[in-house]
Amino acid sequence: MSTATFNSICFNQGYWRKGEVKISKVKNRNQRVKFYVGGASVLSTKCMQSSEKNKREVRIGLLGASGYTGAEIVRLLANHPYFGITLMTADRKAGQSMGSVFPHLITQDLPTMISVKDADFSSVDAVFCCLPHGTTQEIIKGLPRHLKIVDLSADFRLRDIAEYEEWYGQPHSASELQKEAVYGLTEISREDVKNAHLVANPGCYPTSIQLPLVPLIKAKLIEHRNIIIDSKSGVSGAGRGAKEANLYSEIAEGIYSYGVTKHRHVPEIEQGLSDAAQSKVTVSFTPHLMPMIRGMQSTIYVEMSQGVTIEDLYQQLRKSYEDEEFVKLIDKGVVPRTHNVRGSNYCFMNVFPDRIPGRAIIISVIDNLVKGASGQALQNLNIMLGYPENTGLLYQPLFP
Amino acid sequence: MSTATFNSICFNQGYWRKGEVKISKVKNRNQRVKFYVGGASVLSTKCMQSSEKNKREVRIGLLGASGYTGAEIVRLLANHPYFGITLMTADRKAGQSMGSVFPHLITQDLPTMISVKDADFSSVDAVFCCLPHGTTQEIIKGLPRHLKIVDLSADFRLRDIAEYEEWYGQPHSASELQKEAVYGLTEISREDVKNAHLVANPGCYPTSIQLPLVPLIKAKLIEHRNIIIDSKSGVSGAGRGAKEANLYSEIAEGIYSYGVTKHRHVPEIEQGLSDAAQSKVTVSFTPHLMPMIRGMQSTIYVEMSQGVTIEDLYQQLRKSYEDEEFVKLIDKGVVPRTHNVRGSNYCFMNVFPDRIPGRAIIISVIDNLVKGASGQALQNLNIMLGYPENTGLLYQPLFP
Amino acid sequence: MSTATFNSICFNQGYWRKGEVKISKVKNRNQRVKFYVGGASVLSTKCMQSSEKNKREVRIGLLGASGYTGAEIVRLLANHPYFGITLMTADRKAGQSMGSVFPHLITQDLPTMISVKDADFSSVDAVFCCLPHGTTQEIIKGLPRHLKIVDLSADFRLRDIAEYEEWYGQPHSASELQKEAVYGLTEISREDVKNAHLVANPGCYPTSIQLPLVPLIKAKLIEHRNIIIDSKSGVSGAGRGAKEANLYSEIAEGIYSYGVTKHRHVPEIEQGLSDAAQSKVTVSFTPHLMPMIRGMQSTIYVEMSQGVTIEDLYQQLRKSYEDEEFVKLIDKGVVPRTHNVRGSNYCFMNVFPDRIPGRAIIISVIDNLVKGASGQALQNLNIMLGYPENTGLLYQPLFP
Amino acid sequence: MSTATFNSICFNQGYWRKGEVKISKVKNRNQRVKFYVGGASVLSTKCMQSSEKNKREVRIGLLGASGYTGAEIVRLLANHPYFGITLMTADRKAGQSMGSVFPHLITQDLPTMISVKDADFSSVDAVFCCLPHGTTQEIIKGLPRHLKIVDLSADFRLRDIAEYEEWYGQPHSASELQKEAVYGLTEISREDVKNAHLVANPGCYPTSIQLPLVPLIKAKLIEHRNIIIDSKSGVSGAGRGAKEANLYSEIAEGIYSYGVTKHRHVPEIEQGLSDAAQSKVTVSFTPHLMPMIRGMQSTIYVEMSQGVTIEDLYQQLRKSYEDEEFVKLIDKGVVPRTHNVRGSNYCFMNVFPDRIPGRAIIISVIDNLVKGASGQALQNLNIMLGYPENTGLLYQPLFP
Repeated sequence: MSTATFNSICFNQGYWRKGEVKISKVKNRNQRVKFYVGGASVLSTKCMQSSEKNKREVRIGLLGASGYTGAEIVRLLANHPYFGITLMTADRKAGQSMGSVFPHLITQDLPTMISVKDADFSSVDAVFCCLPHGTTQEIIKGLPRHLKIVDLSADFRLRDIAEYEEWYGQPHSASELQKEAVYGLTEISREDVKNAHLVANPGCYPTSIQLPLVPLIKAKLIEHRNIIIDSKSGVSGAGRGAKEANLYSEIAEGIYSYGVTKHRHVPEIEQGLSDAAQSKVTVSFTPHLMPMIRGMQSTIYVEMSQGVTIEDLYQQLRKSYEDEEFVKLIDKGVVPRTHNVRGSNYCFMNVFPDRIPGRAIIISVIDNLVKGASGQALQNLNIMLGYPENTGLLYQPLFP
Repeated sequence: MSTATFNSICFNQGYWRKGEVKISKVKNRNQRVKFYVGGASVLSTKCMQSSEKNKREVRIGLLGASGYTGAEIVRLLANHPYFGITLMTADRKAGQSMGSVFPHLITQDLPTMISVKDADFSSVDAVFCCLPHGTTQEIIKGLPRHLKIVDLSADFRLRDIAEYEEWYGQPHSASELQKEAVYGLTEISREDVKNAHLVANPGCYPTSIQLPLVPLIKAKLIEHRNIIIDSKSGVSGAGRGAKEANLYSEIAEGIYSYGVTKHRHVPEIEQGLSDAAQSKVTVSFTPHLMPMIRGMQSTIYVEMSQGVTIEDLYQQLRKSYEDEEFVKLIDKGVVPRTHNVRGSNYCFMNVFPDRIPGRAIIISVIDNLVKGASGQALQNLNIMLGYPENTGLLYQPLFP
Repeated sequence: MSTATFNSICFNQGYWRKGEVKISKVKNRNQRVKFYVGGASVLSTKCMQSSEKNKREVRIGLLGASGYTGAEIVRLLANHPYFGITLMTADRKAGQSMGSVFPHLITQDLPTMISVKDADFSSVDAVFCCLPHGTTQEIIKGLPRHLKIVDLSADFRLRDIAEYEEWYGQPHSASELQKEAVYGLTEISREDVKNAHLVANPGCYPTSIQLPLVPLIKAKLIEHRNIIIDSKSGVSGAGRGAKEANLYSEIAEGIYSYGVTKHRHVPEIEQGLSDAAQSKVTVSFTPHLMPMIRGMQSTIYVEMSQGVTIEDLYQQLRKSYEDEEFVKLIDKGVVPRTHNVRGSNYCFMNVFPDRIPGRAIIISVIDNLVKGASGQALQNLNIMLGYPENTGLLYQPLFP
Repeated sequence: MSTATFNSICFNQGYWRKGEVKISKVKNRNQRVKFYVGGASVLSTKCMQSSEKNKREVRIGLLGASGYTGAEIVRLLANHPYFGITLMTADRKAGQSMGSVFPHLITQDLPTMISVKDADFSSVDAVFCCLPHGTTQEIIKGLPRHLKIVDLSADFRLRDIAEYEEWYGQPHSASELQKEAVYGLTEISREDVKNAHLVANPGCYPTSIQLPLVPLIKAKLIEHRNIIIDSKSGVSGAGRGAKEANLYSEIAEGIYSYGVTKHRHVPEIEQGLSDAAQSKVTVSFTPHLMPMIRGMQSTIYVEMSQGVTIEDLYQQLRKSYEDEEFVKLIDKGVVPRTHNVRGSNYCFMNVFPDRIPGRAIIISVIDNLVKGASGQALQNLNIMLGYPENTGLLYQPLFP
């Protein structure tokens, strides 16, 4: 093909770094010739070659790349114009390529995964940490101070380390670091995230619950008592670990309420709502595992404050989120569906009158791996580094 | 139960012992030779030949055979020793065989489906009516008085016909008949079912909700206010009608809360609970459509009465259901799962402490097509005709 | 409940005659009172009480009860009038109840699972062996000679133990026993099964493939060359072992061709077809994992022998199976679907003309856990012990 | 490609540098304030405002927007820097917004859908035609000649209009137009597509089949006889029409071989292969409906030409596709999975030795709605209009 240029061009507008249009012909690792043009829009180009990646402004380290949230970071960054992954760790998969662990990513030219102990952090500017809770603390404690860090584990989400110990069964070993961590529910804590060194990325359930409830509680429109939260989640939230309980034959065609009232996201939810209420809030929270891969819905049953109407709730949420890119209060009467946000960073929500006078039903939906994990993490890092927060995140939902 | 009940085991009289195998050779309708062996269990023999069927004690008419609940009646009756289907109607499929409409039933030798207007009801003893609401009334009104009838539609469930009109948008045209209909939530109304001429078979949601709540309300263990019911149902409950909303591509891999607070099962649920409470109960009820074919779970959030404990609820349910074949309070702490009742007539339930003091969470699961429809219908007809109520119903759940 | 008699009726041993209704009151293990009434149909009764079980004619041992095929044996036997399970082993679950491992079976009163080394085989008459290949040989070698054995593993399926070693990577350690094992493809080997001491129960793929092909090959209607078999299986065939590859998130919404041409069922398929052909047959066999729990379809592409027509194939299959309970050649032009046999012991098949002249397409479907495993095993044991082969097996398919 | 191509990034002129963020405040149709930040990547900005859209270089008309392929075009174009949708038709949904028909697209600011008869085509530069076959011909015949057209229906795929009539049951009414239509299997016909006025976008099955087979046939590496194609497709290929057969309860947990040897894609497949072979090729083609929304796999069984090896096939495919963006021959021995291309425009393929000497098995996978429909359509229009063909198409697959 003589016009190979058409095949994988990375155009730019006139000048991206003014006057610096670079057209380069490089060989990728597999020794096939590819053409690259310096440029800005990744979706229309092939920008993942390592040579290219190093030229991206921000060098990203991805710790714990072999899990679902790690793979999702890679998917999202594939079209990010400024962030390039230059370091990937996965202890049990050290030495392997990402494409061998996640074949859907074979077109991405990524660094080989290495053990975290072998990582050279001097060559990266920021990290996403997708490690399991517990080990995360130790590793983050050891990272150089110049790094911007978004941690997707639960390790830095709870301000009260006694509570951490209670729910996670081990003392917290990085309590100093905990103090400077910013809880990154972006739309609520955007200003704090901007200046954060370490962001504790929220859990998926807490994200779906706090986004609608925090503004309503702050505005004193709902009672703090008897908040009943019935959440439903896709199975990908349980990760890629091989567990009998998560086998296809055990999950498909049925539902399962696990951790009734005892799920580890409870203290995180209550912390956020209590902050909004400026008093201790105790919620009823029952998570249900759904026979679906992605998606999360929280159906929340609340008592409205004296004299408050559904319209008041609706207007408050409208006001809170009308300028937001990713949080959408949808048309009155329309029910948010997980289908409608699959694969995207959106949270859709709505509020409905209950049959019981004085009560309301709130429904919010997210993709647990995007707004509930990797998408919000990227949203946070964009902010921490001064980029528009939607950079690389405007994927539309995949439906059907 | 008269001794007559025991008379005609499907094939042979006498008794059967090893070594005494009796083999008989008969021709079925298709003129193929079949062998039958004397034996005791229907599951071990072929009893559906028409010659055979006519010998079953009770001749069953199945109205509206071409829907899912109709097919489920056929599946269950395949191994019923006393009931044989001798009449099947399906207006839009008149002239067709059941096997052409439901190929999984081709091994059953059933009468050809006819239009209900062509049916000769003098030749049947009892009918299952699986017609849509609205048309049901007219047809049942016209049936001979000697028939025992179990109606699976909503037409006779609501005692208050004004309420029927409000929720179903049309006046009730058989109000006299409504008065003698017995609401057939078997475990609750068994004595009334015994003598009923017409049983209104409960809806699936109301079955899953009333079974746990009625005994607790009767025993005054829970408050009548603020009962929050978050129900989840498989899609088969929506029937076989071709609707865009129920296409695989629209349902799979997502969830959908439909009819928030406005589902037609609301008045039925409130009728049952109000009866138990002897005062008007208004509930919050939100049904959710799950990406699964069968199965229903109700997660119910209640306030316990002053001084009542979870243990009190547990013991009350234990006492209420310990002698029941189909309703099972499971071991403390174990979560009922829809997987565990699929294809069976069981209802599994349990009760859990909530994080909010004084509150409890109740979970009940059924198969919406069995205990939630055709299974309970058969359970009722067994009782109406003096047979053990579990006759033909001891299918164990299909898992995985 | 005064009418408890209706609730849980169970017939009794000996024989039953008109007017001789016996009501007995027994206590089950949990010390709850249960009533039993003499009766005839197992499906209408509660027969799993241990006291009752011991009275069943045949005492069954179930080895490897904690896997899917073990659970399926229990489900099927729940309504078997002559077979009662009196021994269950599961090494890793020793000391646990079946209900704790498979909660869908909690209504069955079964013996506690023990380690196979602690089993007393003198108290059982027959065993189903659901152990993994390899260990099976050793254990079966050590069983008393009086036992009838149906082995669901692959250990005794291949007559050529060199071939066993080649495909399973270890030498066969019970070659003498192998010689007396009968390959239990029931409809093909019924006469041999009758007198067998040890039946090697066929694999699921081989069952779905040999049932249509063996009669056609024997009748010399198809060529032995270029038999292309494209099989599709539900995931339950992979068992309950915790493997990343079988997680819901890895399986749902996609398909996977594993072991292309190298699946271990190849030698078993070729052995059966070669026997029929009386010469070595080599097939092309590609299994595909489907996003479904149960069900298996083999789409088989064959060349017809010179002068043979589709009608010839159809008539041969008709003739071969017209008297069979479980193998059904369906109406011309109708496509067999896995949906139509789910949960049942049926095999549906049909034959279609190909576009390429002289070729035919054969489609057969089974439930991999029933006719492909536990159902056929029960069919075989029924025959080995002189009972009608359909005893306890006439469950109709579960659809939808 | 003229340099003009590079000029107009979706929003701003000039250039953007870190530190020089320009924020502009505009009102969209709904009068809500939105913020835009100057930048380079479409994925990082909001470019769908109508004011914005009109500034995109190419004005796109989308005919038949209310089906799945229409919605998929919208999803893909959401991040296309040069194409903006300015006209949408959907006869039955005329007057509705896209967001009301496909709520996952509510964030896109799109024109209201109108009836095709009311469309003003003078204001668009190109159209995607997603109408049903049959009606498509008439409408395309009436379009102005200046338009570039990609037709996703079957109406212009078959060169032989007699064949069209045979398979589609109606005479072709635009035979002149048919003559100038270019069959748009991009990687095979790229040069013709460049100059095309009307592209007939290939069907999903033909795409998955021709991509691997055409190069092998052209290179004379495989025999033309006895090509056996066993294809598996997700249900979304059947569209959004309400059909009983496609209900969740009918599709989930089972598979279905429909149109055995008679599927309408057969003549299209044979046309493509015959062109490559330069002689008439007749194939065996059996499509199977899978319980999944998206994804398509073709498992293709072929005879290699005399003396040809698997390695020869592999090297030929490598050579054919090594410079392609979207067609990937994966590592030897690795099985392509539909999971790995979901939501993306990739085709993954591989070739395997068969057990039968001289035969090979080829597996190819695509997302039926992307490379099998809307993605390839966009790829074609990019080429027709002189843009890099991957523009707006580098979405990475969604997994899990």
